[in-house]
Amino acid sequence: MTTASICTIGDEILIGQIVDTNSSVISQELGRIGVRVREMISVGDIKDEIAQTIENELKKNNIVIVTGGLGPTKDDVTKSVLYDLSGSSGYVMNEEQLDIIHQILSSRGLDVMEINRRQASVPENCRVIPNRLGTAPVMSVRFPREKFGHEAVLYSMPGVPFETKGALPDVMSDIMDIFALSAITHRTVMTYGIAESALAEKISEWEDALPGNIRLAYLPDPLKGVALRLSVYENEGRKSAPELIEEQLWTLRSVLKDDIYSENGETLQEVVGKLLRTKGKTVSTAESCTGGLIASLLTSVPGASDYYLGSVVSYAVSVKENVLGVPAEIIAKCGVVSSECVAAMAEGVRKLTGSDYSVATSGVAGPGGGSESTPVGLVWVGVSSAAETKTMKFNFRNDRLRNIERFAGSALDGLRRFIKGGVR
Amino acid sequence: MTTASICTIGDEILIGQIVDTNSSVISQELGRIGVRVREMISVGDIKDEIAQTIENELKKNNIVIVTGGLGPTKDDVTKSVLYDLSGSSGYVMNEEQLDIIHQILSSRGLDVMEINRRQASVPENCRVIPNRLGTAPVMSVRFPREKFGHEAVLYSMPGVPFETKGALPDVMSDIMDIFALSAITHRTVMTYGIAESALAEKISEWEDALPGNIRLAYLPDPLKGVALRLSVYENEGRKSAPELIEEQLWTLRSVLKDDIYSENGETLQEVVGKLLRTKGKTVSTAESCTGGLIASLLTSVPGASDYYLGSVVSYAVSVKENVLGVPAEIIAKCGVVSSECVAAMAEGVRKLTGSDYSVATSGVAGPGGGSESTPVGLVWVGVSSAAETKTMKFNFRNDRLRNIERFAGSALDGLRRFIKGGVR
Repeated sequence: MTTASICTIGDEILIGQIVDTNSSVISQELGRIGVRVREMISVGDIKDEIAQTIENELKKNNIVIVTGGLGPTKDDVTKSVLYDLSGSSGYVMNEEQLDIIHQILSSRGLDVMEINRRQASVPENCRVIPNRLGTAPVMSVRFPREKFGHEAVLYSMPGVPFETKGALPDVMSDIMDIFALSAITHRTVMTYGIAESALAEKISEWEDALPGNIRLAYLPDPLKGVALRLSVYENEGRKSAPELIEEQLWTLRSVLKDDIYSENGETLQEVVGKLLRTKGKTVSTAESCTGGLIASLLTSVPGASDYYLGSVVSYAVSVKENVLGVPAEIIAKCGVVSSECVAAMAEGVRKLTGSDYSVATSGVAGPGGGSESTPVGLVWVGVSSAAETKTMKFNFRNDRLRNIERFAGSALDGLRRFIKGGVR
Repeated sequence: MTTASICTIGDEILIGQIVDTNSSVISQELGRIGVRVREMISVGDIKDEIAQTIENELKKNNIVIVTGGLGPTKDDVTKSVLYDLSGSSGYVMNEEQLDIIHQILSSRGLDVMEINRRQASVPENCRVIPNRLGTAPVMSVRFPREKFGHEAVLYSMPGVPFETKGALPDVMSDIMDIFALSAITHRTVMTYGIAESALAEKISEWEDALPGNIRLAYLPDPLKGVALRLSVYENEGRKSAPELIEEQLWTLRSVLKDDIYSENGETLQEVVGKLLRTKGKTVSTAESCTGGLIASLLTSVPGASDYYLGSVVSYAVSVKENVLGVPAEIIAKCGVVSSECVAAMAEGVRKLTGSDYSVATSGVAGPGGGSESTPVGLVWVGVSSAAETKTMKFNFRNDRLRNIERFAGSALDGLRRFIKGGVR
């Protein structure tokens, strides 16, 4: 099987200043075309360590994709590693990339400086794949078979996530030109509202009966719930890999029912959006403790303006009363973290925006602000339509950011179930 | 120098399903206590590859921290690797962790199942550091010097980010008990509103004159702007490392002035929060294209309720008109993506919530919805106080999620400059 290693260059990753998201994006694409990613490595901006790591990885793998270390500023060293590895004895100016640099900078009203021009200059033995979204091109070196004892190709990509993503299709088609690949099949079933260990217990019989060539992984996430990933790596049977997986899903669906919210990795906000679009309905949100996160998730989906009208983030009590119209008596009698308050918030925002559905949250994210009756981690979720309003209570006990995420996830899941016609 | 390697276990990372955030958190802590992280590696759930990677890393480094591969479900194999590596010949039940498991599950109203109990069972030659936030304990193996030719310690931590973070202080103090460490000094200066290459040009003289033992890195991010990280690794001079850095910052401040928004890594939302708290003022937000992201960022800061009143996410035109009171004539004449509209939005939300300041956004995030006069990537930002209302225009040209982030970052930066008394 064709294998790959993804190497990320940069002190900023090693000291924990930024999180490497490129490796994840690259490996998704490699998986799709049937390349198995065997390792991901991050090393610092030290030339010898970069060179040694790349060589080591080329010995073990067919494909090595390096990201980072190509920016216009002076802390970059990847290019000189490529110079040595490719046995180049000079640099050449890549005119196509230079044109792109001119276009990009002039569209931003900037002059092309020497520091920018230098980015289009590449070691002579490197192939260039132009980068249309940024100033540093993709460089590639294909090694003779003798060098590492197997077919081996090295790609060096820019490290800015937006540019990495943009250049990936070209890199993938280059890989497909070189290697004969057979695809790995993954399918990801998303669940919400059931903890990982309870889920494992619930589906243990099904899991034990899975065929040997299907692998299962549990992937918990506060916003997305627990994802179940089924993977078929090698399949020599009569049935295709998608058929094999589909067969297993029949049983899984009957066990998990509505706890499954998507079967192809779609997020809660995408699923909610599709439900609304299909029904031709609109939604609005009223958020207290989630502070706009639900709105932000819903509007991260392209085309959300078709069904999403707006939100009132009512952090202050006065906004709950004056904008959403929550009666002062409810707040005085029941408090802001209460079934009554989220019901009034949900109804209030639905009427204010004229939406068909609405969802509201009020809870205690922490670290401060908890009490005996409303401890940190408690959230009330309200969902409302012209026909009815319902509320739900959830208890978590994490740190602020994780609580906010769990609150938002639970609210979106509550909304999904409500629109489908059954609140838990 | 004491070095470390961070190894992440899990097919879910290698196939790109989740992004590894643990390595970043761990390396920040290691850096703080003076350990240099030399490598980060992710490998899949394959026992032989895990074992081989860990051994390799122990040969090269003093400390290896492994995360993941310890969950209650059946896809985990890390523990059996530790069993072999530690030369154990049996498992023992760790009563302290078992107690924690009972507490955690009973507080959630769940029974302790065999699958949970098994997590407290550890290879006999492993030391245990209890994990108070989850069911899997931290396990550690300290190897005799002969084994790898240097002091070497292995830690295996749970992979759930919340638990990894919670167990880190105990692991760090364990490391400090074993090794004599001298700290690395980092300082991060955050800038907004100036592109990486323009910034590099602007400070090139200053950069060239930096002393040899100070390293500089540029870290661009759509939400945070460009961070400049100064690091002192080895310092044998008369001045302390913080003094050395402070000396350099004097010049940098005079060059970059108000483009610097913090000197210790604080985010824009934290800086804005501090400004408001110091002045005893409040803020509200009116968001169109940013869809709640600004509200979500502002409320991610603990204690935000002291100065943040709320937001209206006015995705639909009707919400702009009916809730925020944007005059229909403005929308008809100037459109929703206009200086006039964001000014009216900012004033509207300020009056609606009674806040001292407000910020509003209206733009085209894409992919659809652009026109010749309002292309994808264009955003108007309005800021308002009782004294005045100002608007600013920015042009980006990225994909939807990146545009939304840049819009929100630009709005927060605009608000920061406005509160400080000078809009660009």
